Amino acid sequence: MVQKYMKVERIDHGTVIDHILPSKAFEVLRVLGLSNDKTMSILVNSHSKKGGKKDILKFEDFELSAGEANLVALVSPQATINIIVDGEVVRKFNAEAPKVVRGILTCSNPNCISNQNEPITTEFTLVSDEGHRYICSYCDREIVDLAKCISA
Amino acid sequence: MVQKYMKVERIDHGTVIDHILPSKAFEVLRVLGLSNDKTMSILVNSHSKKGGKKDILKFEDFELSAGEANLVALVSPQATINIIVDGEVVRKFNAEAPKVVRGILTCSNPNCISNQNEPITTEFTLVSDEGHRYICSYCDREIVDLAKCISA
Repeated sequence: MVQKYMKVERIDHGTVIDHILPSKAFEVLRVLGLSNDKTMSILVNSHSKKGGKKDILKFEDFELSAGEANLVALVSPQATINIIVDGEVVRKFNAEAPKVVRGILTCSNPNCISNQNEPITTEFTLVSDEGHRYICSYCDREIVDLAKCISA
Repeated sequence: MVQKYMKVERIDHGTVIDHILPSKAFEVLRVLGLSNDKTMSILVNSHSKKGGKKDILKFEDFELSAGEANLVALVSPQATINIIVDGEVVRKFNAEAPKVVRGILTCSNPNCISNQNEPITTEFTLVSDEGHRYICSYCDREIVDLAKCISA
């Protein structure tokens, strides 16, 4: 019995996020906050041609906006975004850390006003491109572990 | 620029869980509770040859035990498990709903003794194969929404 499970369907239209840090694909999905009705493939700890491992995300019939693409940089700064149309890569760019992130993240400071059940949207500001450091715009608390700050 | 992202690497050794209900692959991963250092591919809402959609999980160099395979049935009873060795399917079987589930699930009854910070392992018993109904072995509370009862 020869296995039939070698291929993922070719993407004719959609988005491929490549060079995601290994094991980080799930966090990327969480920051994107996409509904789970999309057709997608997630490769985790895939062997990279350059050696080492990486994750890859492919979305069929779904084009990531520049704003969404930049959210990817929060989790995996080296990721590249490929937009596929008619089976070809028509656009390829790097995710760029957004200057300001509204919603999506939760402040780790329990006393922050954004955690007091007020009708406030969380906001974080990029303070240093190096290491992608963000602080809360309300209480100045810096994000230490971003994965733990992604809103459920 | 022709896209290079059409294939997932062939699995020579490993496990393929096929015919998972659409959008349920993430829940299957949660009940299996595997560490995230594995090389795996997750296909979500993939187009099935028989029409409709399904999810598929592929683990490289990792053979699911019969006990683990049965946990898959908690989330997706129709799933089939394929064990791949040297590129061929050497074993193919259906996940069977386990009679008893220890750990993994949390009782939804806040007053259940298993939720009182006692050193107790949760336990659920299969009471009906139809619809895979489970009740808590301690307080008899039936699981209504299994996805919500999977331990974090």
